[in-house]
Amino acid sequence: MTSRSSETTARPSSEGRAVARTQTLLKGENGIGTVRRTTLPGGLRIVTETLPSVRSATFGIWVNVGSRDETPSLNGATHYLEHLLFKGTSSRSALDISSAIDAVGGEMNAFTAKEYTCYYARVLDTDLPLAIDTVCDMLTGSLIRQEDVDAERGVILEEIAMTEDDPGDCVHDLFAHTMLGDTPLGRPVLGTVDTINALTADRIRRFYKKHYDPTHLVVAAAGNVDHATVVRQVRRAFEKAGALGSPDATPVAPRAGSRKLRTAGRVELLDRQTEQAHVVLGMPGLARTDERRWALSVLSTALGGGMSSRLFQEVREKRGLAYSVYSFTSGFADCGLFGVYAGCRPSQVHDVLKICRDELDKVAADGLTDDEITRAVGQLSGSTVLGLEDTGAIMTRIGKSELAWGEHMSVTDMLTRIADVTPDDVREVARDILGSRPSLSVIGPLKAKQAARLDEAVT
Amino acid sequence: MTSRSSETTARPSSEGRAVARTQTLLKGENGIGTVRRTTLPGGLRIVTETLPSVRSATFGIWVNVGSRDETPSLNGATHYLEHLLFKGTSSRSALDISSAIDAVGGEMNAFTAKEYTCYYARVLDTDLPLAIDTVCDMLTGSLIRQEDVDAERGVILEEIAMTEDDPGDCVHDLFAHTMLGDTPLGRPVLGTVDTINALTADRIRRFYKKHYDPTHLVVAAAGNVDHATVVRQVRRAFEKAGALGSPDATPVAPRAGSRKLRTAGRVELLDRQTEQAHVVLGMPGLARTDERRWALSVLSTALGGGMSSRLFQEVREKRGLAYSVYSFTSGFADCGLFGVYAGCRPSQVHDVLKICRDELDKVAADGLTDDEITRAVGQLSGSTVLGLEDTGAIMTRIGKSELAWGEHMSVTDMLTRIADVTPDDVREVARDILGSRPSLSVIGPLKAKQAARLDEAVT
Repeated sequence: MTSRSSETTARPSSEGRAVARTQTLLKGENGIGTVRRTTLPGGLRIVTETLPSVRSATFGIWVNVGSRDETPSLNGATHYLEHLLFKGTSSRSALDISSAIDAVGGEMNAFTAKEYTCYYARVLDTDLPLAIDTVCDMLTGSLIRQEDVDAERGVILEEIAMTEDDPGDCVHDLFAHTMLGDTPLGRPVLGTVDTINALTADRIRRFYKKHYDPTHLVVAAAGNVDHATVVRQVRRAFEKAGALGSPDATPVAPRAGSRKLRTAGRVELLDRQTEQAHVVLGMPGLARTDERRWALSVLSTALGGGMSSRLFQEVREKRGLAYSVYSFTSGFADCGLFGVYAGCRPSQVHDVLKICRDELDKVAADGLTDDEITRAVGQLSGSTVLGLEDTGAIMTRIGKSELAWGEHMSVTDMLTRIADVTPDDVREVARDILGSRPSLSVIGPLKAKQAARLDEAVT
Repeated sequence: MTSRSSETTARPSSEGRAVARTQTLLKGENGIGTVRRTTLPGGLRIVTETLPSVRSATFGIWVNVGSRDETPSLNGATHYLEHLLFKGTSSRSALDISSAIDAVGGEMNAFTAKEYTCYYARVLDTDLPLAIDTVCDMLTGSLIRQEDVDAERGVILEEIAMTEDDPGDCVHDLFAHTMLGDTPLGRPVLGTVDTINALTADRIRRFYKKHYDPTHLVVAAAGNVDHATVVRQVRRAFEKAGALGSPDATPVAPRAGSRKLRTAGRVELLDRQTEQAHVVLGMPGLARTDERRWALSVLSTALGGGMSSRLFQEVREKRGLAYSVYSFTSGFADCGLFGVYAGCRPSQVHDVLKICRDELDKVAADGLTDDEITRAVGQLSGSTVLGLEDTGAIMTRIGKSELAWGEHMSVTDMLTRIADVTPDDVREVARDILGSRPSLSVIGPLKAKQAARLDEAVT
């Protein structure tokens, strides 16, 4: 299905421009769901998905770098850098960047994760060229000036403090530490007060130079967009910045890794004077590419994915022990996590943990009922289809697919994979994952006697 | 423009059914933006807005009751009742209710505010009949059994504890108390541990009976919906429950009130061992119906509505003193609030407050620059148009408009009202609102010496 794109071949060869390769990766229906990719000389990938029924577009750039790529003393550098990219380029001040998108009512933001970073803007389709110019300039031309690094250090220290003040969020960082320890995947994305205070402008600049090469980037646009136009505008913006790279460079392959996760029976408690105890009980999950992930999604949905899920019913509906209780999965290149969160009165933490552990054990032993599986399949399918109306969700799907898998799956194929999950698949993944010995992370004001009993939940 | 609806007049008169009145309130273009209202005999209002380009629909029921309608000992009853409506009817258990929507991947939730309560479900358009049946049954047939009240008490106490653990949220409750004191509008929507522990099933049942009359309800549906079909299904559901009410009843008028707010110079500090100090500096704002609200929106947007706003630039970009800083408005039937929030290190709270107060004073004295106004108008307009793609946002707009204003404004008219705001309008509203003496609410671990200085910000 590879073909040269019309916009490239139409140019006179005397320009001497290297040729971009455009492929239609997925053929949609009625103009919806068509995914195209162009790889520019230099290795920059541009993927788009067209949704002509909307008036908006979301434009994003994904970078193949996350806190996992940090040495201990660089911890927090990826996220620090993400902030600094909003501080200005040689042609735009920080105010120019934010004004441009604010003035058209758009929404611009960025997020840093353990394995990637993403910058995006959602705007009216007519403002897409503005969004492309602004985001491309931020990515390719950041100045990272000393004074910006100094001012932004305060902002990041405040962000760390704000997260510390949100124990329901913070307990997930603690859980990563419990499961992965002081390793690149186990350390917090935000870094720590000490590492942030020690990071210099020079080190961040080197980090930027190393990781923001065009071969490490994926540009993704979704909504009322035209592929060739997006390609032309992105190419022009990168060319202008001299950031297209070496013509014969090729994109980096999806991230690989060899982390094997076997943590079991660990307990970590962070003593805080909070009203609730915030707990995560969990175990090793699945890597992002693991074929069993569809069955695990069904399992996690039925166990703690909604108001009708087992944990919600057992912990909240029947016993009123928590307001918030849910399960989650996170998948990395080579390993993953599965866990259950609950927030409850410190005095009730053992009751809640016992119910959660019992349900994990029951599902590990017996799997789910057919009713539960049918409902979870319906829930996942319906929410997948509902997600089709949000250009931000589509941009995330195609950008992340390109970066993390190097391939794309149509929504129809996704629905098929979900519908094809059998009770046996669920039983098998439940036995493998939920059957392993859990670990436990707790934030809250537990008395010594209560703290001593936490081991019961992981024995 | 009033006309009898076809579905009503088509029925044989021998049925003896009272006649519903259907009006087209707004005429859209290309099938988009048409708002219709039918008032059923008994006073139940049903408003819809059609967006044929989507595959989803959001269905909601708005109730003209909020924490403002509670006596001191009933504080928290509206929200408690909202929870209990998920606990089951004579034909559906709590699990039946949640399973129905979960099984189709829909999203069902509810929220309670000071002047209204809303229950809603977002589903694929083909599942709309299911959503209508489920939500209507919850609203009309709740059993409010003793055992449900007992179990849910624990959940609500957990929700209160969870909110206490989120100081950035909690400080807004404190600000309402600072400005409005121990009054219906000043008390928290969730109630307190004491009032929740004291509420009986019997009192909540009486509250339900009193406030969930069809004349107090507005049904709102948006997305790929057909008005007549929605009306037919809602009518059938209410008829089945015997909940259409007395045929000659008419809808309640939009809420009125006579609260005049003149609080100035008050300071309230809640001592908590948090990492950040969370502050709200604010003053009386505008009632929901005040014609100056468009100018105040522009003002609030320019002052603290985005990354390019004055406060974001002064507090975060230039000085790195906070991660989160923004302004907000809230409008009630007869009064309103305007405020500025920031979260920062306790040691920096006076610097942050000084900057915020200075900017409030400057804008009160000089208004905004033309550039700032142009940008804020663009920001409000763009985000209004982007909101047109979200059926949940549309359902909220038409439901709330019907309940709170009793009238509807097209998006085109809203854009005109925003664009028509002049620098003089902004200067006038800035002088009136921002020129008044502020009050201050703070949550955090301030030392006695710091606490003693808080008065400076409101003098």
